[in-house]
Amino acid sequence: MAHENISSDEDLQITVIGAGTIGLSLAALHLTYLTVPSNLTIVDVRPDLKSHLQENLPKFLPESLHMSISQIKMASSVPSAVRGSAIVQECGPESIDFKAALWAEVEQHAPPDALFWTSTSGIPASRQNALMQDKSRLIVVHPFNPPHILPLLEIVPSPQTAQSVISRTLEFWRRRGREPVLLQKEVTGFVAGRLAWVLLREAIHLVDQGVVTVEQLDRIMETSMGPRWAYAGPFKSFHAGGGSGGLEALFRNVGPTVQACWDDAGKLNFHEGWEDNIYRQAREAYQVPNLEERDRANRGVLQTVQEVKRETRAED
Amino acid sequence: MAHENISSDEDLQITVIGAGTIGLSLAALHLTYLTVPSNLTIVDVRPDLKSHLQENLPKFLPESLHMSISQIKMASSVPSAVRGSAIVQECGPESIDFKAALWAEVEQHAPPDALFWTSTSGIPASRQNALMQDKSRLIVVHPFNPPHILPLLEIVPSPQTAQSVISRTLEFWRRRGREPVLLQKEVTGFVAGRLAWVLLREAIHLVDQGVVTVEQLDRIMETSMGPRWAYAGPFKSFHAGGGSGGLEALFRNVGPTVQACWDDAGKLNFHEGWEDNIYRQAREAYQVPNLEERDRANRGVLQTVQEVKRETRAED
Repeated sequence: MAHENISSDEDLQITVIGAGTIGLSLAALHLTYLTVPSNLTIVDVRPDLKSHLQENLPKFLPESLHMSISQIKMASSVPSAVRGSAIVQECGPESIDFKAALWAEVEQHAPPDALFWTSTSGIPASRQNALMQDKSRLIVVHPFNPPHILPLLEIVPSPQTAQSVISRTLEFWRRRGREPVLLQKEVTGFVAGRLAWVLLREAIHLVDQGVVTVEQLDRIMETSMGPRWAYAGPFKSFHAGGGSGGLEALFRNVGPTVQACWDDAGKLNFHEGWEDNIYRQAREAYQVPNLEERDRANRGVLQTVQEVKRETRAED
Repeated sequence: MAHENISSDEDLQITVIGAGTIGLSLAALHLTYLTVPSNLTIVDVRPDLKSHLQENLPKFLPESLHMSISQIKMASSVPSAVRGSAIVQECGPESIDFKAALWAEVEQHAPPDALFWTSTSGIPASRQNALMQDKSRLIVVHPFNPPHILPLLEIVPSPQTAQSVISRTLEFWRRRGREPVLLQKEVTGFVAGRLAWVLLREAIHLVDQGVVTVEQLDRIMETSMGPRWAYAGPFKSFHAGGGSGGLEALFRNVGPTVQACWDDAGKLNFHEGWEDNIYRQAREAYQVPNLEERDRANRGVLQTVQEVKRETRAED
């Protein structure tokens, strides 16, 4: 993990609410940057919070940081946990009632300039802020699982979010070498989610129609678009595919096939009977996932692409 | 490039028809496996074929193989080029008239057991075989650009394709360490194309709506799904995301958001006015693509994932 460009915010007090997978992964990410581990507080109502952290947080951290886990502060309720916090990052249940009540409470007890971040994958800030007195303080910071490895953070303000909240949030993540991307509008499922789910819908359709199996479809992705998109997103990739004429030239050539695929794309929905076949194939193909292998692979892929780009810049 | 598992077919005579980007890339791939470079023939009507190969083929090959380029056979017409061929691999223009006439001619002059492969990205074998006497011989072998690097080959028989043609085609590519995936049915755009185009449609929609720019959308992909899908396709990734309950548990949790994204997905088509904005943004963001960097990155990503998987197997 790169530690360049760290400024004084390595000593900020940060509170993470919720010790599920995303909360733990984000806590681990913060811990790698904090000089004083006790500046991190984790809030969760589970009675076994201490043993839960001792057991699960090491999975997200290098050996050298395992000792610091015992110094993290723990809390079971919000008021005292957020009192001195510069950042409150919520990773709780995906429920509008939970989140709206939480922010109203957080707002009462946190310092007036604290940043309020929600990790929601689908409930926009403009709904979560319903019970807040000052709605300008809340912003979506949507990580991509696992966030201690994958650099993306979708930053999604509500129409009420203050410009200073947006810019301080972007700056924080840029200083940490992560990739915050500011969306210009609130949109259902944000961008990464929409792209992933629309592709998965077509993937389910093709398996449902018996064209390929779940496992074949995954192999297709892993040996074609996956490696390609790890280096260059779809626009950059297809722009290169069009040669000197770019995306426009590509579409002049393959446009009719593209339109035919769009016309023929699957339009299936939940509860239409495809579920059993898909779930069964996924279970039979993959059983217990090897998350340790996944993490090593994701980290390695990101490093490889960074190194190749660094070499190019060095040659220029 | 892995050279394990090479059998005697390193001495097969192979004819590649069409010296465009895909034809050259596939020719380069064959050249890395052939012990006798003159067993490879490239057919193209362009008058400057020799200088075209000398200039462009080295881009696809390691230094050590540049000398062998001068030994490749060249031809401007089909009959003599395919006479002794064990494999005829077509990479010509994406035109049904061209391809149907070509296969009728190839069939007359090639050996009776030669394999006929078309690299088409959209015209199924069942249409290309219209003028053939023996329609059982033709099969789609759809590579993913650039095929000398990305391992995927979509193998798509027509209903008339012989089982022996299917199995010999799969075996050939498996022996070369590539990833042939057999589709059970002919389907518009095949699988990789459909997945890519349906995602690109949503990507265009999100840029068109002003949610993100072309460049932001690409960064989102490069820092989230790209690295993830380079290691594990969408089903495997989301199955892992659901913990011990797998894909079914994941959908129990995020299903409503997924359905909302499906309901809200863009349904745009060509000629609806989005093109100028998208093409302009792509041109401004990317200018001339660095294909050399792309190739190094794609190769590096594939190697990284392979190494991580090999390490896991060694630990087991």
